[in-house]
Amino acid sequence: MRYRARCEYDGTDLAGFQLQPNARTVQGELEAALARLNGGERVVVDGAGRTDAGVHATGQVIAFTCGGTVTAPELQRAINALLPPEIAIRDLRRAPDGFHPRYAARYREYRYTVWNGPRSPLRERFALGVRAPLDVAAMAKAATVYLGRHDFSPFGGITDRSPVRTVHMVRVRKEGRLVTIDVRADAFLRGQVRRMVAGLLEVGLGRTDEAVLRAALAGREPALNGAAAPAKGLCLR
Amino acid sequence: MRYRARCEYDGTDLAGFQLQPNARTVQGELEAALARLNGGERVVVDGAGRTDAGVHATGQVIAFTCGGTVTAPELQRAINALLPPEIAIRDLRRAPDGFHPRYAARYREYRYTVWNGPRSPLRERFALGVRAPLDVAAMAKAATVYLGRHDFSPFGGITDRSPVRTVHMVRVRKEGRLVTIDVRADAFLRGQVRRMVAGLLEVGLGRTDEAVLRAALAGREPALNGAAAPAKGLCLR
Repeated sequence: MRYRARCEYDGTDLAGFQLQPNARTVQGELEAALARLNGGERVVVDGAGRTDAGVHATGQVIAFTCGGTVTAPELQRAINALLPPEIAIRDLRRAPDGFHPRYAARYREYRYTVWNGPRSPLRERFALGVRAPLDVAAMAKAATVYLGRHDFSPFGGITDRSPVRTVHMVRVRKEGRLVTIDVRADAFLRGQVRRMVAGLLEVGLGRTDEAVLRAALAGREPALNGAAAPAKGLCLR
Repeated sequence: MRYRARCEYDGTDLAGFQLQPNARTVQGELEAALARLNGGERVVVDGAGRTDAGVHATGQVIAFTCGGTVTAPELQRAINALLPPEIAIRDLRRAPDGFHPRYAARYREYRYTVWNGPRSPLRERFALGVRAPLDVAAMAKAATVYLGRHDFSPFGGITDRSPVRTVHMVRVRKEGRLVTIDVRADAFLRGQVRRMVAGLLEVGLGRTDEAVLRAALAGREPALNGAAAPAKGLCLR
């Protein structure tokens, strides 16, 4: 039987989503838990997005196939009981045969969180700390540069497929000292969100402006010399 | 010169506030940073409250005495640069000679946070996860039992001083799946807040009621067999 679920994780001490030898990853931990429930045999777990090391998630869609002798709530409890504290699944339910989260997802949404104030140990696990005041209005305005269908090569890693992606939404908001940047697209190149955010932070700090971002996006060189915002502020939603 | 500051810490991996040999504590880390700025000589750090291992703080008041050749903002930056990521100070300023946070504090306030829902890796670092639905209205009503001046021995550790404390405020609130319990008193016995919270959680789960808490507070035996809510949900404000 095919199952789907949502997976939440604190990525701080994880080497990303995708299975790797000799490193703790979300896929690896999920597959280890499922193998224990499957007589030791591997159960392959598919995810909607391959988050990088240190990136968090509240709602990564996953799917897997395994024998069904228990109800979905029972299976979910059993999996959660075997997962480490920084990973959990919820909303586990049957999915159509052949369901794959990567192809089923119509869009991906990420949130990048910035703590714009003095160093705050209770905030900075899930946020990038930026001490200098950010010009959030300028960031919000510059963010519109990313909207629409573009060749995102200057903001993405190398890919052997098309580097064209469509950004449906970019929203920059401030609430007290928390600044959040939400981005939704059909899909993202590797590292794209963190490079888009790095560009907006440069604008917020007054070190560059909207026109430079626009030119970078239209060019062929890595934008901002490839600078990417740190993983810890990023969360797949 | 005497200085005071507010100290914020993520207590997860710390053995509490108070200096201990062979364990990382808040006082120990602060004193280590200050000694490095003081030619290797010890600078004693006083705190308003001795939080236990695993307890967090957003506004622990601290004080220390050291030579003053730099401005307070410079000194604060230097200290923060030497502290580990989970500890930071803010609002550093001169204090009157003889200022001691423990005696100067007119009250202490703690917040206990509960995540009342399925296991949530992004929430549970600073909150106790409770899956079963809590009756928050019953908790709020029962909390009034603690108000006022009482011998808190049944909810406190052993003390060789008076076990009488005055609770000025207890507030139980729910926002989505987050339940917060705020408690303010002139001072607390060791473990008192966590035992008060354990009592309210028992009420919220329908396993005991207000009358039992009232009788426990009036008695001489440890309430609820001494049960205390886990440290990770507790934060000194």
